[in-house]
Amino acid sequence: MIKAGIIGATGYAGAELCRLLAAHPQAKIAGLSSRSFEGKALSEVYPAFLGKIDQICQNKEDVIAASDVVFACLPHGHSEELALKTVYSGKKFIDLGADFRLADSGEYKEWYGKGFEHFELHLEAAYGLPELFREELRGKKIIANPGCYPTSVALALFPALKSGLAEAESIIIDSKSGVTGAGRELSDTTHFPNCNEAFSPYKIAAHRHTPEIEQTLSRAAGKRLKVTFVPHLLPINRGILSTCYVRLKLGTAPEKLRSLYEDFYRDEPFVRVMPEGQTANLKNVRTTNLCDISLHADRRTGTLIAVAAIDNMVKGAAGQAVQNMNLLFGLPETTGLELIPAAF
Amino acid sequence: MIKAGIIGATGYAGAELCRLLAAHPQAKIAGLSSRSFEGKALSEVYPAFLGKIDQICQNKEDVIAASDVVFACLPHGHSEELALKTVYSGKKFIDLGADFRLADSGEYKEWYGKGFEHFELHLEAAYGLPELFREELRGKKIIANPGCYPTSVALALFPALKSGLAEAESIIIDSKSGVTGAGRELSDTTHFPNCNEAFSPYKIAAHRHTPEIEQTLSRAAGKRLKVTFVPHLLPINRGILSTCYVRLKLGTAPEKLRSLYEDFYRDEPFVRVMPEGQTANLKNVRTTNLCDISLHADRRTGTLIAVAAIDNMVKGAAGQAVQNMNLLFGLPETTGLELIPAAF
Amino acid sequence: MIKAGIIGATGYAGAELCRLLAAHPQAKIAGLSSRSFEGKALSEVYPAFLGKIDQICQNKEDVIAASDVVFACLPHGHSEELALKTVYSGKKFIDLGADFRLADSGEYKEWYGKGFEHFELHLEAAYGLPELFREELRGKKIIANPGCYPTSVALALFPALKSGLAEAESIIIDSKSGVTGAGRELSDTTHFPNCNEAFSPYKIAAHRHTPEIEQTLSRAAGKRLKVTFVPHLLPINRGILSTCYVRLKLGTAPEKLRSLYEDFYRDEPFVRVMPEGQTANLKNVRTTNLCDISLHADRRTGTLIAVAAIDNMVKGAAGQAVQNMNLLFGLPETTGLELIPAAF
Amino acid sequence: MIKAGIIGATGYAGAELCRLLAAHPQAKIAGLSSRSFEGKALSEVYPAFLGKIDQICQNKEDVIAASDVVFACLPHGHSEELALKTVYSGKKFIDLGADFRLADSGEYKEWYGKGFEHFELHLEAAYGLPELFREELRGKKIIANPGCYPTSVALALFPALKSGLAEAESIIIDSKSGVTGAGRELSDTTHFPNCNEAFSPYKIAAHRHTPEIEQTLSRAAGKRLKVTFVPHLLPINRGILSTCYVRLKLGTAPEKLRSLYEDFYRDEPFVRVMPEGQTANLKNVRTTNLCDISLHADRRTGTLIAVAAIDNMVKGAAGQAVQNMNLLFGLPETTGLELIPAAF
Repeated sequence: MIKAGIIGATGYAGAELCRLLAAHPQAKIAGLSSRSFEGKALSEVYPAFLGKIDQICQNKEDVIAASDVVFACLPHGHSEELALKTVYSGKKFIDLGADFRLADSGEYKEWYGKGFEHFELHLEAAYGLPELFREELRGKKIIANPGCYPTSVALALFPALKSGLAEAESIIIDSKSGVTGAGRELSDTTHFPNCNEAFSPYKIAAHRHTPEIEQTLSRAAGKRLKVTFVPHLLPINRGILSTCYVRLKLGTAPEKLRSLYEDFYRDEPFVRVMPEGQTANLKNVRTTNLCDISLHADRRTGTLIAVAAIDNMVKGAAGQAVQNMNLLFGLPETTGLELIPAAF
Repeated sequence: MIKAGIIGATGYAGAELCRLLAAHPQAKIAGLSSRSFEGKALSEVYPAFLGKIDQICQNKEDVIAASDVVFACLPHGHSEELALKTVYSGKKFIDLGADFRLADSGEYKEWYGKGFEHFELHLEAAYGLPELFREELRGKKIIANPGCYPTSVALALFPALKSGLAEAESIIIDSKSGVTGAGRELSDTTHFPNCNEAFSPYKIAAHRHTPEIEQTLSRAAGKRLKVTFVPHLLPINRGILSTCYVRLKLGTAPEKLRSLYEDFYRDEPFVRVMPEGQTANLKNVRTTNLCDISLHADRRTGTLIAVAAIDNMVKGAAGQAVQNMNLLFGLPETTGLELIPAAF
Repeated sequence: MIKAGIIGATGYAGAELCRLLAAHPQAKIAGLSSRSFEGKALSEVYPAFLGKIDQICQNKEDVIAASDVVFACLPHGHSEELALKTVYSGKKFIDLGADFRLADSGEYKEWYGKGFEHFELHLEAAYGLPELFREELRGKKIIANPGCYPTSVALALFPALKSGLAEAESIIIDSKSGVTGAGRELSDTTHFPNCNEAFSPYKIAAHRHTPEIEQTLSRAAGKRLKVTFVPHLLPINRGILSTCYVRLKLGTAPEKLRSLYEDFYRDEPFVRVMPEGQTANLKNVRTTNLCDISLHADRRTGTLIAVAAIDNMVKGAAGQAVQNMNLLFGLPETTGLELIPAAF
Repeated sequence: MIKAGIIGATGYAGAELCRLLAAHPQAKIAGLSSRSFEGKALSEVYPAFLGKIDQICQNKEDVIAASDVVFACLPHGHSEELALKTVYSGKKFIDLGADFRLADSGEYKEWYGKGFEHFELHLEAAYGLPELFREELRGKKIIANPGCYPTSVALALFPALKSGLAEAESIIIDSKSGVTGAGRELSDTTHFPNCNEAFSPYKIAAHRHTPEIEQTLSRAAGKRLKVTFVPHLLPINRGILSTCYVRLKLGTAPEKLRSLYEDFYRDEPFVRVMPEGQTANLKNVRTTNLCDISLHADRRTGTLIAVAAIDNMVKGAAGQAVQNMNLLFGLPETTGLELIPAAF
């Protein structure tokens, strides 16, 4: 059994990770910590877990000591220090925060306000999107678990850009996320009467996931590209749907795209390329690690519209973290993640 | 492996049953049928199941032939005939419809419009609420899977009435159900703009679950009782919450009730008696077979308020059906049902 | 033009009052105040009001000075002092808080923690439910605007109790409110992922509206009565629906009730007694001052089920306050309140 | 008083029109018709209207005869015939359907399956978006009331294209609509459990509003342009939000855009250009004829993001129709439409 520790277990990503790990056949929760709820049971914070996950929140040092792998579910800026302690004790570190996602310290500083402090750690880190970068992850000590929006966009556009069938310029990404994406913290934005029966974009062309999206898509295109990224807040609990617009290279038959994607993801258990005529809907992936992708062509304007749907808390956070853990520990990636979405 | 067949697999209860059985470690879906979608894959009807449950809907005869146990998910009035065929072939029959729930043909006729046609079948049937009637179920050929509202109410009130601490008169049951309770069928009531941001009771003091509730509570009280039952439609997908009002016998200390319930359900894996100060919320049981019960006393009026929350599609239908199958086949009742609810 | 001042204009009741007064043909907003947003425009707090209500929040003294009538939208405990200042300046005071609702200082202390401080003020006050107590309001200096739940319950049950057709014992009130009822203040309870797709009772048999409900129903019954009152939180923005259970006196024909209610409310522009076969739904009264009442009998148990639906922010707060203002100033009560609910 | 007749009054646009006209100070409902509900009161179809709009649905001939202006709220293909009858009787005709929206019969045929039948009628028709084409509407006999999506997009992009500050190529329009946009008709798509907690695009690059959008934007740009238009279904009742992406001409300072829009819409009572730092949200315009527009620049990619929010049923249908009626009859356009949106 893999002994898993969760730092920041009472935030949304942490709690979802607990839900998945508690049901994982080859891992167990060795410890969990929370700054706000130390000494309390997780089930006191989330009554849904009553009798299921009643472990008490400890301090983080005890959690690290008890674990083979440490998951950090913290706001950005707190993970380097923690990773240092963890990997020096010979344990694996999976960061659900942003600290290891960007390869470039300068870019990190531009978007997050300060640069890397421990460059050597970043050499041990890899970007944990297994479907795209599986080989780079093996043997790594630190995994940067991707952001929720970037996961959906990367899976939606990577094949089109990698293959050269789509242009790297003028990419527009219009994403919509459920409210859990804003986390457990109270705010005007997440006050029920404010977001129910409401809909609006936010952080327009200014969201911190932008450079992360560009980093992955640039790797696909083989050159540095920029995107316009606009996230919106949906009045639902879970799920992200990204509608991605890219120009097709002149002469690219849209049919070509579908078989390209089907080939690309053929052996991926978590990616479903929807059959012709079906459209990705975030409803169909809720509480699972699946990513549904549907492809549509606007022949009148030569535009590919790639739509990806994930559960922001699972494939967009905790589920992908477990997938990364499985990969690091030599388990089938699907272990503990073979979840069937509810039909309604 | 138990070979399970589902008749009426494309209705909501049937689809939920498929979700649970597809993940069951000791059972497999041997066949499924649907009148409306024969020849189509279940995943064509419910795209959430794509790649997960792609079995084709057959005719019901083939399903029965291939199965050890047949689940019928049909409108009332269709199960007797089917049960006849099934049990004569030596197979088990679990009815998610209403045909075998009432013990009395006259009462069934009063509420459903026609009496029993095969009385002998009813001798082979038992009411499948394991927490209350486990011993009666063993060895039975036919299980009447309880209705969703009656399950919540029976678990909420049985101990209070059985113990004699509560009066059998003047019981008021105010229940609220998510929209999946109305099924897959389109109707004005379930048209989104009609039920979103809306709330209303329906079938006031006239719902067919009334005699079923009374049947179980009468057994608890040891005498024939009547209840006032008013269901309401909640603008959410899943879940039932029943707020049950009973008068406490003079001199009953409310604390007594709590320990009574804790004792009564101590070994029941699916019932959680909430700790003092917590309140049952249907959010905490979604997609699981759990029933959360919270107990509250109105000391000013001598009233016990017992609140029960279930997922109408799981403990209120498909999950309880699987629990009954497990019981019939000698498996631990929790097999395939050890689901941890999501915290949000 | 009546000069109206609103103290506490940025809370939900205050903002709704501004919406109604801004469209009132015989009143104008003379001033508005807010402790948290002094110096800011109301439309900065609520962007929906941009270009419509851009008045700046002042301090409350200035507001009182500029007004003929002062509406106080404050938490309980703050209104006596304010009323004192207002009525001594010869102005009218309409309190949307709880301070003047209960006639008995001892009862007020029991539920709100402290007794009256200015008894003489309470002699000038009347309980502002015009449909029931219109005559008592004329000429009064202070109006206690009723609570939201009590408004729905009083209108639902007054005729039945007043007429003596229903018993005063064993009254059960099961109410459900939209989230705006919890106000503008952030809380775990109103965090979107916590209340969306959730449903639960709260303050069970302990809500402060209980004595207010009992006060009005006792007047109807002509004797002191107690009720069991359980409010629930609905995952919608607006509206209260109260399902009220009372025992019919032996021999009372349910039909009698309907004509009784129709007669009782015949000339009331804001109360709609629903035709036989229809059921009150909070959807049908949203953003209006209407109260829909539907009557249902459970003949099997001799129970009357009276269902009342209001918009908690309008008839349950700001709309009723405007109705009271109209009445105090000799205008038709419907002035500025002739709102047609949207059909969806 | 203008005598207004509504053909197709029981559909959503028709019912909303009735709500607005019933409160209009200078118009009255002279008659309303419905194929499905002839002989029934509108309030039987929509109980929200009980006691407010109890008029009986008649046949359409009687409605036309009784009216000065006829509003047609019908599926496309039914309006030419009706318009013929109406204008020949010397009355005005305002079509909320699609039949008169496109100027080109060939284009109409391409998207709607058949061409114009009465070309002469189209000479009498004008496209009723007063903010953009007011002068063309005066004196016209037929008004083509714009589609809901096209209204939001036209108001969002017209100034940018007209001014030449934005490129006419590569326009991407990502729109999101509430479920009332799908109308009163039952469908799988609008079945509550299917669309609640769900989100998905539909009719991707194939929606019939595409040519209508292009027609208006082409007029702005002064040349034929094409757009990529993808609508999505939001799990809310009302409202459209369109996120529109256009490339800025090289060297265009984004600030220039804001003052351009402010000037363009300075005297328009229904358009609110949001102050810097605020974002359009469909919540802020609900049940009103307002269109909120916010402007955002992605300086990294030279993209203007113009966001427009309307109520699909009001500015997107019935409200704009009343605005057009006011204009035709020489009333201030705001008559009967001075609605203040609720803050929550």
